[in-house]
Amino acid sequence: MTIHPFDQALQLTPTEPGVYTGASASAYWNMVGPFGGTTAATALNAVLQHPALLGEPLSLTVNYAGPVAAGAFTVSATPVRTNRSTQHWVITLSQANAAGVAEVMLTATAVTAARRTTWSAVDAAMPQVPRPDTLPSGRLMSTMAWINNYDMRFIRGGLPTEWDGGGDDSLSQLWVRDNPPRALDFCALTSLADVFYPRVYLRRALRVPAGTVSMTVYFHASGEQLTQSGTGFLLGQARAQAFSNGFFDQTAQVWNEAGALLATSHQIVYFKE
Amino acid sequence: MTIHPFDQALQLTPTEPGVYTGASASAYWNMVGPFGGTTAATALNAVLQHPALLGEPLSLTVNYAGPVAAGAFTVSATPVRTNRSTQHWVITLSQANAAGVAEVMLTATAVTAARRTTWSAVDAAMPQVPRPDTLPSGRLMSTMAWINNYDMRFIRGGLPTEWDGGGDDSLSQLWVRDNPPRALDFCALTSLADVFYPRVYLRRALRVPAGTVSMTVYFHASGEQLTQSGTGFLLGQARAQAFSNGFFDQTAQVWNEAGALLATSHQIVYFKE
Repeated sequence: MTIHPFDQALQLTPTEPGVYTGASASAYWNMVGPFGGTTAATALNAVLQHPALLGEPLSLTVNYAGPVAAGAFTVSATPVRTNRSTQHWVITLSQANAAGVAEVMLTATAVTAARRTTWSAVDAAMPQVPRPDTLPSGRLMSTMAWINNYDMRFIRGGLPTEWDGGGDDSLSQLWVRDNPPRALDFCALTSLADVFYPRVYLRRALRVPAGTVSMTVYFHASGEQLTQSGTGFLLGQARAQAFSNGFFDQTAQVWNEAGALLATSHQIVYFKE
Repeated sequence: MTIHPFDQALQLTPTEPGVYTGASASAYWNMVGPFGGTTAATALNAVLQHPALLGEPLSLTVNYAGPVAAGAFTVSATPVRTNRSTQHWVITLSQANAAGVAEVMLTATAVTAARRTTWSAVDAAMPQVPRPDTLPSGRLMSTMAWINNYDMRFIRGGLPTEWDGGGDDSLSQLWVRDNPPRALDFCALTSLADVFYPRVYLRRALRVPAGTVSMTVYFHASGEQLTQSGTGFLLGQARAQAFSNGFFDQTAQVWNEAGALLATSHQIVYFKE
């Protein structure tokens, strides 16, 4: 049995409780480091592998402090406070620099929670869109390895075909799933919440340097609901609210094919010019 | 000259670089601890007071790990990585319990940045609403001290007047500013981003126990733009996207009277039943 590239990318070896070593996955390489979604999922995985874990992920915030290089890294996840039904985590990913000194590449916090069934409602309803099997599969840019690990089917807001500075909108909607398909779980969902290419590309129809600085994911679904989503497509929607002096934000929603809102996500992204 | 209650609430005394003592402000007392907006602002203030600070706030995430009690607390803010134009912070607020043992009450991360002028655009335009001076000032619930420190003028989505379970919407819009008025800065803006009462009250027209677990604020404005906002009102808008098994989210925008989008904010909130 072959291991899925995503599971390979997320592999962590514990060296002491809450401290793990891993390695940058070439299969998920982006422009100057591994795809940030995979790095965020790695941070979450360090929490999920911890022997003291309480409950399931509720929120995750990752801050990309420096470009993760090829090779080994260390992740630490510490439960700094455990309440009756929530647990608070502080996470760090570090990597030795050329001089052998450990540098912080990512800081993160997470909250896990033992959830109980309550009144529930989705106010952000899934938009009415064509089903994924009616749409062509498409790749964005074959030069970036990570793209090949996702099957993306754009409904609107695909990459501009003319980089002419004529953009006027930042809304993208796409069906997306792992390629090859893989059963959904919290780590995969975290990574999928980051598959949207930089909003500034679309809004300006200009390709300028850009990179995520901080991302937050709120999980609205249980692990059981994720399991029920199986290997189905997810509908991802993303838009920006503001572009201001070198940084823009992105708000995103991710639904499964049945229309359940699995996660909402936000990020703030550096851009140049 | 009298010190403003907000400045009093935020007072920190450094004990070593990046470590401060402060005290819970009774003027901002909420139901079971100080108003979370003030606590978030305190975490940010620990960063802003640090001698090694680079730039201005770009993002702040605070996780409320436990109810801050009356009395003294300790805040530490550590710049774990400083790049050319961004700086990454890890922040902790702790308090001694009855046995004298320090307990983590809040974890936080922040990114500060030296911003440069670039192409900018606000896609989330300020909604057309009546000006603040045409609306009556109103208090929500006089039993909570912190409410008295804000002048809130609701346009829509004020507290339900009948708690009859008949809610169908979670959108609130209000003009708000410090009371008495105080010139806007990053700490005040952070606190103002958290003035929205729990969305579940409005959505269900039911008052159930609720409390913020994690909040993120993205700052789109410079300190100079905040200064230009002066003591004017801010337009705050908040809504939920999902209520699911004990937790709901909130997305919020804050504009100044001139229509500049100063900050966007997100939180995930516990609720019971």
